[in-house]
Amino acid sequence: MTTNTAPPSEALSRLAALLGTAGCMTGDQIPAACRSDASMTGQQGPVALLRPASVEEVSQALAICSAAGLCIVPQGGMTGLAGAANPGKGQVALSMARFHGVEALDATAGTITLRAGTILQQAQQQAEAAGALFPIDLGARGSCQIGGLIATNAGGLRVLRYGTTRDNLLGLEVVLADGTVLSHLNEAVKDNTGLDLKQVILGSEGTLAVVTRAVFRLAPQPAPIHSAICALPSPEAAPDLLRRAREALPLQAFETMWPSYLTLVEGLEQTRLFDETPGLAVLIEAECPLENFLETAFEDGLIVDALLAQSLAEAQTFWALREGHRIDAALPGLMNFDVSLPIGEMAAYVAETTAAIGNIDAGAAVHFFGHMADGNLHAVLHAPGADAAGLHGMEAAIYGGIRARGGAISAEHGIGTLKRDWLEHSRSADEIALMRRIKAAFDPGGLLNPGKVF
Amino acid sequence: MTTNTAPPSEALSRLAALLGTAGCMTGDQIPAACRSDASMTGQQGPVALLRPASVEEVSQALAICSAAGLCIVPQGGMTGLAGAANPGKGQVALSMARFHGVEALDATAGTITLRAGTILQQAQQQAEAAGALFPIDLGARGSCQIGGLIATNAGGLRVLRYGTTRDNLLGLEVVLADGTVLSHLNEAVKDNTGLDLKQVILGSEGTLAVVTRAVFRLAPQPAPIHSAICALPSPEAAPDLLRRAREALPLQAFETMWPSYLTLVEGLEQTRLFDETPGLAVLIEAECPLENFLETAFEDGLIVDALLAQSLAEAQTFWALREGHRIDAALPGLMNFDVSLPIGEMAAYVAETTAAIGNIDAGAAVHFFGHMADGNLHAVLHAPGADAAGLHGMEAAIYGGIRARGGAISAEHGIGTLKRDWLEHSRSADEIALMRRIKAAFDPGGLLNPGKVF
Repeated sequence: MTTNTAPPSEALSRLAALLGTAGCMTGDQIPAACRSDASMTGQQGPVALLRPASVEEVSQALAICSAAGLCIVPQGGMTGLAGAANPGKGQVALSMARFHGVEALDATAGTITLRAGTILQQAQQQAEAAGALFPIDLGARGSCQIGGLIATNAGGLRVLRYGTTRDNLLGLEVVLADGTVLSHLNEAVKDNTGLDLKQVILGSEGTLAVVTRAVFRLAPQPAPIHSAICALPSPEAAPDLLRRAREALPLQAFETMWPSYLTLVEGLEQTRLFDETPGLAVLIEAECPLENFLETAFEDGLIVDALLAQSLAEAQTFWALREGHRIDAALPGLMNFDVSLPIGEMAAYVAETTAAIGNIDAGAAVHFFGHMADGNLHAVLHAPGADAAGLHGMEAAIYGGIRARGGAISAEHGIGTLKRDWLEHSRSADEIALMRRIKAAFDPGGLLNPGKVF
Repeated sequence: MTTNTAPPSEALSRLAALLGTAGCMTGDQIPAACRSDASMTGQQGPVALLRPASVEEVSQALAICSAAGLCIVPQGGMTGLAGAANPGKGQVALSMARFHGVEALDATAGTITLRAGTILQQAQQQAEAAGALFPIDLGARGSCQIGGLIATNAGGLRVLRYGTTRDNLLGLEVVLADGTVLSHLNEAVKDNTGLDLKQVILGSEGTLAVVTRAVFRLAPQPAPIHSAICALPSPEAAPDLLRRAREALPLQAFETMWPSYLTLVEGLEQTRLFDETPGLAVLIEAECPLENFLETAFEDGLIVDALLAQSLAEAQTFWALREGHRIDAALPGLMNFDVSLPIGEMAAYVAETTAAIGNIDAGAAVHFFGHMADGNLHAVLHAPGADAAGLHGMEAAIYGGIRARGGAISAEHGIGTLKRDWLEHSRSADEIALMRRIKAAFDPGGLLNPGKVF
C-alpha cells in the first residue's frame, strides 16, 4: 500500500490519461446503470467509472486510486440483489465490461479460461460450441458477468447437479487494492500448495480483491433432459420425494413453488397448471424419463398429480413460472430474500413466517419458492403500505426464524449493504471480527468496497 | 491473544490440572507415534502431548498455551506425508484422538456431524449403516482422522466422483490459538453470509486453527460398481480414453499406473496382469457394466487389452496394486511426491522426469501412478545411494518440470515442512506474503504450527 496520498482530482487526471475516454468516465458520461444493482437501492453515483481493458490497466488504475486514497467499488453485470456493487459518494466504480471473452478452452481437459467481464451466456455458448457444458446457470445469464459470479459465489439453477461457482472454479487471477496482481490460473482440480486464497475471495463481494481472469471446469453435455411439474399434497411430503429422486434419478433440478407463489406467477404468465392449487409444486428435471418414478411416487401418496413436459417449449413454460421474470414489474418495491435452512425445517418455517408477516401487516404478502435440494428458499415480500419500521419488523420475522433453525440469512445473493445489519443472525461476533482482520490482510487501507458485507 | 506470558512449566501444570493424566502426557508417557507423521521425518518429540476430550478443553488448553507463549502442533492420525504434524523442540502436540464419534446423522437431509478425532473408516461405516455413503475415501482410512482430512483438504480415491474434502464439508467448528471457539456447524449446501472462513482453513495444515467438529454431506449409496484394468498402448492414449469414459459412463475411478510402477507392485503382490507390460495401465470403475465401453475402446485402438473384475475380491486385488501398501516396506527411505498438472502434459512430464532422474543418479528409480482424472500424479522416488545434494537435485528435477507446465507441487499431501522450500515453484512471492498476513489474522502470536507450509 502506498502511503503518500495524492489529491483525488490529480488521481482522476492520471486515470483518464491511463485509460482514455472509453476507459474513464465522469459526470454525465456515467451511465445510470452503474448507480445501482438490481435491488435498485443505490443512492449516489460514483465520482468516476473506470473501464479498464487489460489486467495491466486494472493494476495501474488500482495503484493510482490507492495512492490517492480513493475507494473502489468493483462492478460486474449489476444483477446483484444485495447492493454490494452500489457506489457511495466520492467512490470510484470499476467495471470489467471491456475485459471480456474466452482466453482458452480445452475440451479434452475440460477447462475454460475467461476474462472477468465475460457475460455468462457467452461462456455457456462457447462451451456448447466445443461440445461441453459450462456448469453455472442463472436467470440473469444474459447480463451477469464471470467476475460477479465469483465475487458472489453464485449458485443458481444447476447447483444440485454441478455445485456452486466455488465447486467449478479451478484457477483465479485477482488484483489487490494496491495494484498487486495475484495470478494463479491453475487448471488442476487439486492444488494443496499453501492457503487456497481464491476460496476466501469467492463470495467476498468485492471487499478483498478485483477478479480479472478465471479458469473453470467444464462438464460433459448432459443426456436429454426430462422435465415434470409435480403437485404435492403438502410441503411436508417434499423431503421424502427429494430423497427418493436423488436415489432413483440422475437428478438435475428439484425446484419448489409454494401455493401463493404459484398462484402469483400463474396469473402473470396467464396459465394454470392444476385444477386445484397443490400444497406444493415441484419442478423436477433428470437425465432420464420420469414416468416410472412419478408413477411410484403417486402410488405412495407423495404426489397427487404431475405434468410431464412433452417438448422443450413446454419445459420452458415450466421454467418461466419458476424464474418469475415478470414479478419485479408486477410488484413494485418488493424485497428479495434468499435464506438457507435444513430441508426438513422448510415447511414449518414457511408456514410460521407467512403467519408472522400477516400478523404484522395484513396488506403484505410473502411468496416462497426456490432450490430445495440446496437447502435454499427464495422469498419475495410485497408490502405496499408498510413504512420503514413495518418493513424492518417483517425482515426480523423472516431472519429470526432462520436463526432459530440454524440456517443462513443468505444462501446465494450475499450480504452487500441490504443484509449487513442482519449478519449477526448467521455469524458470531468473533467470526465477523476475524472477517475484518482477513479484510485488512488483503486491503490494509480499507479502500475496496468499504461499508459492504461486514 | 493474552499478553502476559507465564513460564512453560507453570503452563504445563495448569494443562495437567485441566486435562488429567489421560489428557496431558509428558516425558516417557508420550507415545513414539506422535513424534512423526508417515513421512518419518520427525526430529524432536513434543514437550507435552495434550489429548482434550471436549471443545471446552481444547479452548481452555489453547488459552493456557497462548498465555505461556507455547507453540501448538495439531495432530490427527499422523498419516500425513509432508511433515506438517511433526512437533519441534519445546512445542506442544495437540491430539484430537479422544474427541471422536458421530454427533448427528440425518439420512433424509444427507448430513453427518463428526468430532475431529473420528477415524475415517468409522464415519464410513456409520454412514453405510444409515443407507448412505461418506464421500471421502483414502488408503489411510483405518487410521486417519476427520480433523486431518480437513486440515489437509484430503483428496483420495473418490475425488473424480464426489470431489475433495472441500467439496463435501458443509459446516465447521474450530478453535483459534487464543482459545476463541468459532462454531459454524451449518448444514446447508449454500451459505453466502460474509467470508467463508472454513474455506481458507481447509488445507491450512494446522497453521490457522484447530478443527473440533464438522458437518459433511452424505451421498446416496452408489449402484453396484464394475471394475476393470485396461492396458493402453501408451500414456498418450489416456486423455482420450478418459474423455470418452467421462461422457459414456457414470465413472467412479480412473487410476493410472505407469510401467515401472506396475512392475514394482506386481512383484510385491506376486501377481501379473498382462503377458506384456502395457504402456500404461488404467483402473476404471463405474456404476454400470463396462463391456460395451471397453469393446469400443479396443476397436478404436485406445486400449490393447482389459481385465474385468469377476468378483469383489478380484476388484480388491486391482486396488491392492494401485494402493501399493507394501511399497513403504520394500523401498526404505523412499520419498513421496504428489504433483498436479494438466492431463495432456502428463505423458511428456513422466518421460522427461524419469530420464532426468536417471541422468542424475543411475541407481535411482522413480515410479509414477495416480488419479489422472483429478490432474494428480503420485510418484515414489527410491535413491538408496544418493546423498542430500543428489536428492535435492532429483527433487528439483521433479518440481522443475511441474513449474514449467503450470502445475502444482502438491495436489493433496500438502506442503508441511518437506515441500516448504519448494513452495515458490507453485506460488508467487506476493501470494506467499498474503498467506502470511492471513496467518497473522488468525494467529497473531504465530503459535499454531509455526514453521510449517510458508
